[in-house]
Amino acid sequence: MISILPVYGLPEIAAGDELGAMISAAIQVVDGDVVVVAQKAVSKAEGRVLRLAEIEPSDEARRRAGDSSDPRKLEAILRETKRVVRSRNALVIAETRHGFVCASAGVDQSNAPEAGMLVLLPLDADASARRIRDEIRERSGADVAVVVSDSFGRPFRRGTTDVAIGVAGLAPLLDLRGSADRAGYVLSSSQVALADELAGAADLARGKADGVPAVVIRGAAISGDGSAAELVIPAERDLFR
Amino acid sequence: MISILPVYGLPEIAAGDELGAMISAAIQVVDGDVVVVAQKAVSKAEGRVLRLAEIEPSDEARRRAGDSSDPRKLEAILRETKRVVRSRNALVIAETRHGFVCASAGVDQSNAPEAGMLVLLPLDADASARRIRDEIRERSGADVAVVVSDSFGRPFRRGTTDVAIGVAGLAPLLDLRGSADRAGYVLSSSQVALADELAGAADLARGKADGVPAVVIRGAAISGDGSAAELVIPAERDLFR
Repeated sequence: MISILPVYGLPEIAAGDELGAMISAAIQVVDGDVVVVAQKAVSKAEGRVLRLAEIEPSDEARRRAGDSSDPRKLEAILRETKRVVRSRNALVIAETRHGFVCASAGVDQSNAPEAGMLVLLPLDADASARRIRDEIRERSGADVAVVVSDSFGRPFRRGTTDVAIGVAGLAPLLDLRGSADRAGYVLSSSQVALADELAGAADLARGKADGVPAVVIRGAAISGDGSAAELVIPAERDLFR
Repeated sequence: MISILPVYGLPEIAAGDELGAMISAAIQVVDGDVVVVAQKAVSKAEGRVLRLAEIEPSDEARRRAGDSSDPRKLEAILRETKRVVRSRNALVIAETRHGFVCASAGVDQSNAPEAGMLVLLPLDADASARRIRDEIRERSGADVAVVVSDSFGRPFRRGTTDVAIGVAGLAPLLDLRGSADRAGYVLSSSQVALADELAGAADLARGKADGVPAVVIRGAAISGDGSAAELVIPAERDLFR
């Protein structure tokens, strides 16, 4: 059996907060737990926020924003964008510095610490996950894995699902290639995006508007270690560039 | 807390099997449970299998198969394909009759009942889910929701995640639009693909090679009813066509 446990009682996160220490104080974790932490909480703790009032929009940001959007927000999005993958009006599907493809390069106004603020993705969410993991081990003695999650839209399918943008203490891909099914077939194209499924499972226990930034998944089969960069399809194999 | 419970002890599925009855006999379900059933099991129970030896490949199938693939398998894939979305060599990313976009139009040789067999997607996986739901209610008295799941690849991200291709007894999209976050912002683009997150969570409890075709998720917040067709982005809003 796998259990999904929301971590209640965490305060609103502020810059400089030690998330791992806060999570350790709020819930008793054990070896093998996966602690899934929402990107917004991580970004706020790391001070990855921007004040709209301090952003000077470029001409391109003004052009993309048109009459219906805030050009300062578009400017923040473009600064976080390595490549515009698709766009329509003010909507930008961007490739981020990390190689992730998502709406608005992950720049978000909802759940910002105060009005007029934007929250950006962590600069290195694997490093964020490692830091949280180390803090948890220091405080609780438990050897957990950590996933930093964010809500991404998907081509072809409506609605967002939470996916992993940073990992520590687990291999994000579960490689079933070479394992045989019941009839003796060798499974060919079977790499499971385990870290994404963990992130999505955690979201089931966390109403988005409810402010539950951390969720513990207990009993999942994890192993190894790795980086969320492994979840990005290399450009030469990407049929949707 | 949410619990994910694999259903052990189900036999190999054969055409004509009543999956809902078999699941009810193998695990005690309660009102509000979500029963996630793997597409392969559903398709086998519905006789949605093809014998390779009985397929006559078309010229297009031969051309796409080249020297490295079985043209009979390509023929089966093309028959299940409404639109070829992308292709490279023998790999076809297809839109299915249901509107889903996935590799090989969902045609799969792994976990087939015997050598030389292909498993196709159910013709109407919502109807499959409703049938299983009704059988479970009849046998156990419990009012559960059912999700039929399959492993899909995703553009931009490596590895598959399980997603919903059929639902009964739950709304597949959780609409957070209009709900306010902690700072009072109204969340704008927040529809969560709840049924996909449920399917992915179930996969965590099911090793692909292990033959656990059904998983029960207990304690998730579900409501309403709907169709997996709601998870398909309408053509006019699809930036990736």
